[in-house]
Amino acid sequence: MELLNARGTRDIFPEEKIALNALSEELKQLFELYGFVPLDTPALERFEVLSAKYAGGEEILKETFKVKDQGERELGLRYDLTVPLARFVGMNSQIKMPFKRYQIDKVWRDGPVETARFREFIQCDVDIIGSNSMLADAECIAIASDFFSKKFKQFEIQINNRKLLNELIEFCGIPKEKSLTVLLSIDKLKKVGEKEVIKELKSKQIEEKQIQKLIKILSITGSNEKIVSETKKLLPQSEGVKELQELIAYTNSFNAKNVQISLSMVRGLAYYTGTVLEVFVKDSKSSLCGGGRYDDMISNFLEKKEKICAVGLSFGLSRIYEELKKETKNKKTNTVLYIIPILVEQQAIQLIQQIRKLGINCEMDLLQRGISKNLDYANKMQIPFVLILGENELKANSLKIKNMNSGKEISLKLNELEKLKELIKE
Amino acid sequence: MELLNARGTRDIFPEEKIALNALSEELKQLFELYGFVPLDTPALERFEVLSAKYAGGEEILKETFKVKDQGERELGLRYDLTVPLARFVGMNSQIKMPFKRYQIDKVWRDGPVETARFREFIQCDVDIIGSNSMLADAECIAIASDFFSKKFKQFEIQINNRKLLNELIEFCGIPKEKSLTVLLSIDKLKKVGEKEVIKELKSKQIEEKQIQKLIKILSITGSNEKIVSETKKLLPQSEGVKELQELIAYTNSFNAKNVQISLSMVRGLAYYTGTVLEVFVKDSKSSLCGGGRYDDMISNFLEKKEKICAVGLSFGLSRIYEELKKETKNKKTNTVLYIIPILVEQQAIQLIQQIRKLGINCEMDLLQRGISKNLDYANKMQIPFVLILGENELKANSLKIKNMNSGKEISLKLNELEKLKELIKE
Repeated sequence: MELLNARGTRDIFPEEKIALNALSEELKQLFELYGFVPLDTPALERFEVLSAKYAGGEEILKETFKVKDQGERELGLRYDLTVPLARFVGMNSQIKMPFKRYQIDKVWRDGPVETARFREFIQCDVDIIGSNSMLADAECIAIASDFFSKKFKQFEIQINNRKLLNELIEFCGIPKEKSLTVLLSIDKLKKVGEKEVIKELKSKQIEEKQIQKLIKILSITGSNEKIVSETKKLLPQSEGVKELQELIAYTNSFNAKNVQISLSMVRGLAYYTGTVLEVFVKDSKSSLCGGGRYDDMISNFLEKKEKICAVGLSFGLSRIYEELKKETKNKKTNTVLYIIPILVEQQAIQLIQQIRKLGINCEMDLLQRGISKNLDYANKMQIPFVLILGENELKANSLKIKNMNSGKEISLKLNELEKLKELIKE
Repeated sequence: MELLNARGTRDIFPEEKIALNALSEELKQLFELYGFVPLDTPALERFEVLSAKYAGGEEILKETFKVKDQGERELGLRYDLTVPLARFVGMNSQIKMPFKRYQIDKVWRDGPVETARFREFIQCDVDIIGSNSMLADAECIAIASDFFSKKFKQFEIQINNRKLLNELIEFCGIPKEKSLTVLLSIDKLKKVGEKEVIKELKSKQIEEKQIQKLIKILSITGSNEKIVSETKKLLPQSEGVKELQELIAYTNSFNAKNVQISLSMVRGLAYYTGTVLEVFVKDSKSSLCGGGRYDDMISNFLEKKEKICAVGLSFGLSRIYEELKKETKNKKTNTVLYIIPILVEQQAIQLIQQIRKLGINCEMDLLQRGISKNLDYANKMQIPFVLILGENELKANSLKIKNMNSGKEISLKLNELEKLKELIKE
């Protein structure tokens, strides 16, 4: 048998998993700081749910792994965490609103396998269900601001509004029914440039004059105040501008950093209805975090078809990890102390259990190896401190702890073990 | 469209997920305290891997969800975390031994849906690969002891040894090739009683005299010393007894609690080769944790067929949760403070951001509701503290925080906000 991973999947080695765990934990704590609760929906959903109208759309369905159970029921592996959330809200009318939930979990897409595109990957979502206030949108932005301020020196939270974009498209004389396809072209502005987008819009039967007008408006840049005032001049009654203005006032109160209106930022997905946002860090071509308001999707999952507003954010955990890796060194283990017993195994066990009681992550030789092989293991695993325990140390009632980075040795009396916690911090 | 979960799957509501997250985190920290590193293998594996000889066996393959990717490759959803681990070790000969890894993740089995048996559930595994020393087995038992001592007043870690069981079966004159089927019957002793097991063994063509002899030996109870000495009398050269003796000496050094030899404890799976263990708490009919040594399985995944020893432990997270739930009350949210602004939304936002900087999980009204509806929400969500903020409080520079359980009110100056952390601890 040939040993292989399933195509497009991979093992996450301890080195990376330690860093990803730390990131997830940090995000989880941040979400709970903002009052979000965790939800766990199954990886397997009924295919009918995954293929519902207003769910992921046709493109994503082509990439959905289909599964049948023993009863020949048609199931699928979820391709995102948003559709299952909508199904959950639809099934549970007793849930208190606003429902602020987060979920950090895997999703699957059977797409083409390119570099760094995997068929199994983690999504990290926060959503606020049941509030139509821009306060909710602003809170999502505040969370992004808190996280990226802590992690990156340079970042920008680009915001825009789908209502405004639709209004602008209409203002340019483009027929309403062409809005979505025009949006999908605009979305490519940063990636392929103006020329290509103009060509694409022409191929979509949009008039040259209309295209020029739209492109000119979308290239308004500058301070948020300037962009708001210029678009307001064009569209004095705009609902989209009003929402953007409100959102900016709220994000200021939240003290959110680096929030910048970007009129050409669309965020591809069809289901957004208002605010859209994307976070970029220095150098990053694609966004590390994105989201927006989707007020129509959930009602599709309801019997009563009442409107249930929603706004949410998705953190690209793997991409964030890749960016952070450029600056920080990964740890191979969270173990900080390695104990090598020389013919005093039982005493070493008793000692290591005392040290573990202090909350210090430690490990001891399980293979009865010699000192040099053990030091080699500790070195390869990048464990920062090593303790060699033999008869001499036990007789002298004194431990010697070696700092593997500096080479320095620290001495410690056996009855002063609690000092270890401080000593190995350095 | 009818809104339903896929058959045999379920949503884990926030209340339960908060408790499960806390349990996972506790176990994760315990595993790292013992020097284990996390590994993440994909949910999708090639079917060839899942169906390999010495993997899960035929019964489990019948329950495996089959999946095909776009290239018509045969895949499956993993049914455990051990087979993927074996595949990983087989693929990565550069991994340093011993490889001490943990993984807490979902697995899938398309089995019959009974009460509390789900088709998607969490496994929580620690394994030590590459050590044949009983020290490794003892370390696993020490981890179980640490965890269950902390969580339960009463528990028992039952241990046994498959080598000893095979030796005893041979000692009773039962042919070697019938060992496994006899073991599977013995495994039922506690569940169905002696009579039924004797009947089953007879139907398996085991002689009455042999059965009586075996049952008599397996019912030896008492202290570990007594069981060891009595089995040693029967089998002076027993490898199994020697291992058990060694294991008990090690667990004593580790100061592991409530370790008890149980000769009739078999632990069903075919792949165990030495130590087996199961943890029971008061009242629990099935074990909450189990594992053992499986020295033959991994070599099956290797080209060179060298022997790679392994011993591991699996914590039944859901079952542990169910047992703990009997005694502790679940939290509906980790939010501790809810802020209700009366016409001072912007100031409330600024205040809540200051409070969040103190690390206090808090939430504010996002729906512009009145006081009574807001209090109702806080009450239903079981948020322990509420702060109502209006013009009066801002003018007086003083905050009033209500304890929702006692009804008491605490006052706090706005410039003494850092005292909040202490105040809401009570």
